[in-house]
Amino acid sequence: MKRTSLIGQLSEKNLNQSVTLQGWVNRRRDLGGLIFLELRDRSGVVQVQVEPDSAAFAEADKLRPEYVAEIEGHYQQRPEAQRKGGAADYEVIASRVKVLNTAKTPPFELDKGAEVAEDIRLKYRYLDLRRHEMQKNLMVRSKAVAAITEFLDAEGFIQVETPMLTKSTPEGARDFLVPSRLNAGEFYALPQSPQLFKQLLMIAGYDRYYQLARCFRDEDLRADRQPDFTQLDMEMSFVEQDDVLELQERLMAHVFKRVLNIELALPFPRMSYFDAMNDYGSDKPDLRFGSKLIDVTELFKGGEFKAFASAQAVKVLVAPELTRKQIDELERIAKQNGAGGLAWLKRDGESFTGGISKFVGAIAPQLIEQTGVEHGGTLLFAAGEWKKAVSALGAVRLSLRDLFDLTASGPQFHVSWVTDFPQLEYDEESGAWTYMHHPFTAPHPDDIAKFGTEQQGEIRAQAYDLVLNGYEVGGGSIRIHSPEIQTKMFAAIGFSEAQAREKFGFFMDALEYGTPPHGGIAWGFDRLIMVMSGANSIREVIAFPKNNRGSDLMALAPSPVEEKQLAELGLALLSPAE
Amino acid sequence: MKRTSLIGQLSEKNLNQSVTLQGWVNRRRDLGGLIFLELRDRSGVVQVQVEPDSAAFAEADKLRPEYVAEIEGHYQQRPEAQRKGGAADYEVIASRVKVLNTAKTPPFELDKGAEVAEDIRLKYRYLDLRRHEMQKNLMVRSKAVAAITEFLDAEGFIQVETPMLTKSTPEGARDFLVPSRLNAGEFYALPQSPQLFKQLLMIAGYDRYYQLARCFRDEDLRADRQPDFTQLDMEMSFVEQDDVLELQERLMAHVFKRVLNIELALPFPRMSYFDAMNDYGSDKPDLRFGSKLIDVTELFKGGEFKAFASAQAVKVLVAPELTRKQIDELERIAKQNGAGGLAWLKRDGESFTGGISKFVGAIAPQLIEQTGVEHGGTLLFAAGEWKKAVSALGAVRLSLRDLFDLTASGPQFHVSWVTDFPQLEYDEESGAWTYMHHPFTAPHPDDIAKFGTEQQGEIRAQAYDLVLNGYEVGGGSIRIHSPEIQTKMFAAIGFSEAQAREKFGFFMDALEYGTPPHGGIAWGFDRLIMVMSGANSIREVIAFPKNNRGSDLMALAPSPVEEKQLAELGLALLSPAE
Repeated sequence: MKRTSLIGQLSEKNLNQSVTLQGWVNRRRDLGGLIFLELRDRSGVVQVQVEPDSAAFAEADKLRPEYVAEIEGHYQQRPEAQRKGGAADYEVIASRVKVLNTAKTPPFELDKGAEVAEDIRLKYRYLDLRRHEMQKNLMVRSKAVAAITEFLDAEGFIQVETPMLTKSTPEGARDFLVPSRLNAGEFYALPQSPQLFKQLLMIAGYDRYYQLARCFRDEDLRADRQPDFTQLDMEMSFVEQDDVLELQERLMAHVFKRVLNIELALPFPRMSYFDAMNDYGSDKPDLRFGSKLIDVTELFKGGEFKAFASAQAVKVLVAPELTRKQIDELERIAKQNGAGGLAWLKRDGESFTGGISKFVGAIAPQLIEQTGVEHGGTLLFAAGEWKKAVSALGAVRLSLRDLFDLTASGPQFHVSWVTDFPQLEYDEESGAWTYMHHPFTAPHPDDIAKFGTEQQGEIRAQAYDLVLNGYEVGGGSIRIHSPEIQTKMFAAIGFSEAQAREKFGFFMDALEYGTPPHGGIAWGFDRLIMVMSGANSIREVIAFPKNNRGSDLMALAPSPVEEKQLAELGLALLSPAE
Repeated sequence: MKRTSLIGQLSEKNLNQSVTLQGWVNRRRDLGGLIFLELRDRSGVVQVQVEPDSAAFAEADKLRPEYVAEIEGHYQQRPEAQRKGGAADYEVIASRVKVLNTAKTPPFELDKGAEVAEDIRLKYRYLDLRRHEMQKNLMVRSKAVAAITEFLDAEGFIQVETPMLTKSTPEGARDFLVPSRLNAGEFYALPQSPQLFKQLLMIAGYDRYYQLARCFRDEDLRADRQPDFTQLDMEMSFVEQDDVLELQERLMAHVFKRVLNIELALPFPRMSYFDAMNDYGSDKPDLRFGSKLIDVTELFKGGEFKAFASAQAVKVLVAPELTRKQIDELERIAKQNGAGGLAWLKRDGESFTGGISKFVGAIAPQLIEQTGVEHGGTLLFAAGEWKKAVSALGAVRLSLRDLFDLTASGPQFHVSWVTDFPQLEYDEESGAWTYMHHPFTAPHPDDIAKFGTEQQGEIRAQAYDLVLNGYEVGGGSIRIHSPEIQTKMFAAIGFSEAQAREKFGFFMDALEYGTPPHGGIAWGFDRLIMVMSGANSIREVIAFPKNNRGSDLMALAPSPVEEKQLAELGLALLSPAE
């Protein structure tokens, strides 16, 4: 028996008609001899009434929560007194009920799923996925895939699948290895990203490439990482940075329109890495709200507060009135993010009390003027080395956001670009230069002469990040297409010719056979969908995620394998597994 | 400088206008002081003329094959005498040339790529991929992805990504293993297919699911297998076999229309497994041509030719006149496919000569009538156990196809269904029953009583294969949704409760929580694209394939890894790699 439609697709034209529906019993109540059922499918829920004298009654009486049922009946409006608007104003009077399958009692109540321990939800993921919230998230994800495919195909992008069993790529994290049986003692690596392959496709003349690519990093898992994740990977030839950004903006706007029916204003604001750090203490600033860091370095320079007097940077953030306890908590966060401490002041009339107030008597008027702090409001200071000061205060800014719900009056979504990242970063720990994006990122043409000089830290990269609500949802760059500049770049990060050749000799060969100017970007697709769905973890937008030990609690993976199976691969366990 | 358009998109409106183009130098000729270039991008090639007095001449003179260049010039029709129709009738008179990148001389001539040894093509894949044929194939593939996504999204299918790091699934081949570092001594398996996960999604209420899924099988590679491959995976709830087939037909027609602009006639012909084997000797018959196997068992029964007299089946195929050498070759193929031999006859007037002619004197008129063989034509016989006889003759039929180009007058593409496969197969070697599709395939409801009886070989499965030009391009089934029938099925193939639970306990648990009736299919996407592109190997439709030793000759994967890296995984090589 075919269903009339999904439950959520019943419409005016079905009214006072016979309908056939299929789904799960969401709830059952018995009242005055009647059976009231809620029948659920992915699209909605409808109330079903089974009358005691109905031919359907005996079968309906067998139904329990989560049973699968087919119900035929008369679709009608509920009595006027019971209407409240929406789908709940309609009901089905059952004439036929068929149990399609039984169900054991679920180990947790589905409509309380969000309160259930995550381990239980992951173990019974097939039940957790029945929850409306999870279904909504995965539908957002699916709609985004379709919108992206539609847009990029129309723009002449070619979808290409790059290898899953490949060689180590230089993304900085550990590779997952896959032992080869046909070549025992040798290993494939699962791709950390298709970076080299997409550049090879540009060298091969594909001009516009995209792929929703599964990527793998064997990292010590933090709260919101997965060992495998999905990125929307794109690359374009014969483009400059503006061309990439312009297309990306139209793509993102298309996705938001198609999936959420939200119009994003174009173009997205662009901000240099320096401005983002200096003004918001973050290279992925949440711009749904203001609260810029204010520079008061000059005001304190040479003054009586010694800690600030000679600091490279003194930055201040304006907050509402804060309790001592709140200030202590914010100071903890500032310290966690590299600050020596978090100095503070409370405005009281035209002067300040508390914190460092005894040092600011003279400059109080200027401080009030520069910060605009209101009576009773708090000023929070971080001082010292510029990057540390702004980073710490940037973290405090986000804590204030959460504490005072500062995004409430802002836009639901704010997308922006951060550009002009440094090409190279000096790592104090190892005392060596390293790349900030990856070693294939093109430097700004005006800065090339600085390679190998003391100013190489000032080389700007043609790199850009896409930022949504304080999350980095995309990152990319114009790539190096000249073998000579690629060699300079390797040299700058201490890669010898031999090391570079060993790691990606085939790529360096390819560069010499006619490489077009090219650039691209990759979106962190899981994270984008998380933000678009309003979910608070990427595990909420992945159907079958791993927990933070990298385990699938449902399928019980990873798991031990037989010694024989390892022997076929030329491998043995170092010490026997338990 | 932005290009006017891709070369192949230049149109009437660019005529006698200045255009800017970017691409690769396909060819360079110097003639009478002029430089003639062909500039190529993925969309086409255009001839460029650089005159000796042009400002562009000095830069153009640097160009060599495969250099990357930007060319500005006047787009015009060639002199009337030189026009032959098409793109070659137009040319660009260069006013500005810019070398965007140089290129070493390629190790093979790109326009002779098809004749180059495949190992060389794979090593320099980024050059091989510049060939028009490869670009065309990958564009067909990309267009198919977009068409599939468009169709299934509109039909309410939800795209879901299933895990790449998972547990062994029961697909019959070896798993690729991935050692877990966080859980040393334990292993993930790369998925052989998303089979269990897509069924779990149906249990979770997703109703319609699709995914272009990367799948992995560690098999001893035959000519046209890849260790990883792509399948278009789909599943539907509350459906019967006809619902799945109907939707699949519309999907396939949509893909052919969108990608190749070819209309497929719907519905596709359906043929039972028995008829396909009996009439064409194949469960994936190539129906672009006729040449049915003809049954002459009765004609020979009890007759003078002892080898045929008591055979379970005697089948004959009509062929044109064949040389002895051709017959010998066909016999070799018949034997390779299980026949004891290939008997033959040549029609000569109203009787036969050669082969087994001395045994068929009496029945010659009936043989001529039943087979319709023409004068001079050949009859080819296989006899014995039915399945062996038809399979052998089926292989001979395909050889005749290739020998006589029998598909030349047929349709370019022929799609059909093969249905009613047996649920179980008896494996003579192991003396045990096994599943024919997979253990989750639903039996025909009328045949369930046969489980565990001597007739269990007669149980029909609700399974179906999609056949295109003699290739199986899809296979699927209605699935078991009842835990009791799943248990019967496991018992029939000798899986104990404990074995079944160990292998997929979580799935058996899930089945008990309200499983809807459901079914689906998976397309072998690489193979489909191969046939649609007219390519002769799946390696021609995969951007970066492995060779038949599972090696990537360009990236040099697999490769040895450091002992230290293995130690982190709790592993050691059994014997040191060379």
